[in-house]
Amino acid sequence: MRKNIGIIGLGLIGGSLGLALKNNNHKVYGCDIDSNHNKKALELNLVDKVVSIDLMLQLCDVIFVSTPTKTSINIISNLLDNVNEKQVVIDVGSTKSKICKELKPHKNRKNFVAAHPIAGTENSGPEAAVAELFTAKKIVICNKDESSSKAIASTLSLFEQLKCDVVYMEADEHDKHLAYISHLSHICSFALGLTVLDIEKDEQNIFNLAGSGFSSTARLAKSSPAMWESITMQNKENLLPAIESYIKHLNQLKKDIEDNNSYDLIEKMKKANEIRKIIKN
Amino acid sequence: MRKNIGIIGLGLIGGSLGLALKNNNHKVYGCDIDSNHNKKALELNLVDKVVSIDLMLQLCDVIFVSTPTKTSINIISNLLDNVNEKQVVIDVGSTKSKICKELKPHKNRKNFVAAHPIAGTENSGPEAAVAELFTAKKIVICNKDESSSKAIASTLSLFEQLKCDVVYMEADEHDKHLAYISHLSHICSFALGLTVLDIEKDEQNIFNLAGSGFSSTARLAKSSPAMWESITMQNKENLLPAIESYIKHLNQLKKDIEDNNSYDLIEKMKKANEIRKIIKN
Repeated sequence: MRKNIGIIGLGLIGGSLGLALKNNNHKVYGCDIDSNHNKKALELNLVDKVVSIDLMLQLCDVIFVSTPTKTSINIISNLLDNVNEKQVVIDVGSTKSKICKELKPHKNRKNFVAAHPIAGTENSGPEAAVAELFTAKKIVICNKDESSSKAIASTLSLFEQLKCDVVYMEADEHDKHLAYISHLSHICSFALGLTVLDIEKDEQNIFNLAGSGFSSTARLAKSSPAMWESITMQNKENLLPAIESYIKHLNQLKKDIEDNNSYDLIEKMKKANEIRKIIKN
Repeated sequence: MRKNIGIIGLGLIGGSLGLALKNNNHKVYGCDIDSNHNKKALELNLVDKVVSIDLMLQLCDVIFVSTPTKTSINIISNLLDNVNEKQVVIDVGSTKSKICKELKPHKNRKNFVAAHPIAGTENSGPEAAVAELFTAKKIVICNKDESSSKAIASTLSLFEQLKCDVVYMEADEHDKHLAYISHLSHICSFALGLTVLDIEKDEQNIFNLAGSGFSSTARLAKSSPAMWESITMQNKENLLPAIESYIKHLNQLKKDIEDNNSYDLIEKMKKANEIRKIIKN
């Protein structure tokens, strides 16, 4: 069934949602605080039309919010103040505890679905949007029981069209795992970018010597500061212990190297090799 | 001109060299300390024949040494004791200072070329070999003036056939840059693997939540411990300050998060974004 879909925030995620939903014959209305994003989204056919949030509320069956998580809470709260019984608001940000906690008492909480597609690239903005971003990716729905079964059903039908694989989780649990499995990776990469830029004043050396290993570990350092400042701050409670644990492991490896303790160093590397079970390719 | 080529060490690099050189019509003789590697290399057609080092010395025009860097020095020193005037020995390990320093006084130093192809994957062993591993990759030749011009010419003709782009550098300079641009990335990744395996006892959570960002930053944790213990210890002088600098940057990011210092956090992330100039894709 063709739906009217609104998307607030037309960056990598919002723009990719637009493309994918338009490909599934939905009518897509977009809106971004940055007028350049609106212009670009129209140019790139990510949305059918750019409208105000008020008009979106009048027109749309489902509204996705894909702004930095920090601003999403207010936007969603305002949307929920004004939704009718059938409308669904879906958040697709990377942190879930705070948003679920703050929106829990809202009279229309049942119209809201807290989702997180495990999909993205290090690129940002509407130009980074790709129609297949969500294909075969996991999407986590948090605190499912706080949404109405109608809102969940409507969300699932869209996610099915995006060819996502849905996983359910509690918001607190989601944020704790994500701190280690995603947010920490970004901090590692930002720090690696800073370290290398700090020492390598001559970029030609980096060009000549950077192999695929460096690109792989440092590419997330290209990620959007606005988005990652927001995620980082919203999930600091889980992320700070993750960074501490990471620094502890780094110091242990460093000590093995300092002490010429090859045996322990190799044992730790062998243990780390177990990540093979999880990262297949 | 068809040459007889020897390869000592038939893992990822040696095996890939074998494949690529066989594709260029050279006759390739291989040898590995692990008899399973020898068997596999023959099965996978990475080499034409497995021979002893002694026979290799009788038969080959050029001998590549692609063993862990720790063992390479002795192997190369023994080879150089016995080479004739025309034979060339090429090391393709990831650290260069120690090997160049130790071999400098050798009477046949001029027959030796210290090379480092900036190519690899996180996989190891003969099964990981791929014919195109070196195509369009940089290859660094260190301390070129210590090799005879004949040895360099012979090496360059092979590297040209592998479609590599040759860069010249002093060994000490090479090792310092590599500590930051490659070796540090591996330590980051090993530490990330250990951190995540430590906290996530239930692998299903990692499966469900690990996106491309995690795979990208943690994939090097799959790398060979034997190889990376060797590289790490050989380049500890440069690698330890690199790890220290990295931990310093991590602690600064951590402090910004602890202090809710969004402004400084964003400034640091923006600075890290400059890595975009180097990592294009």
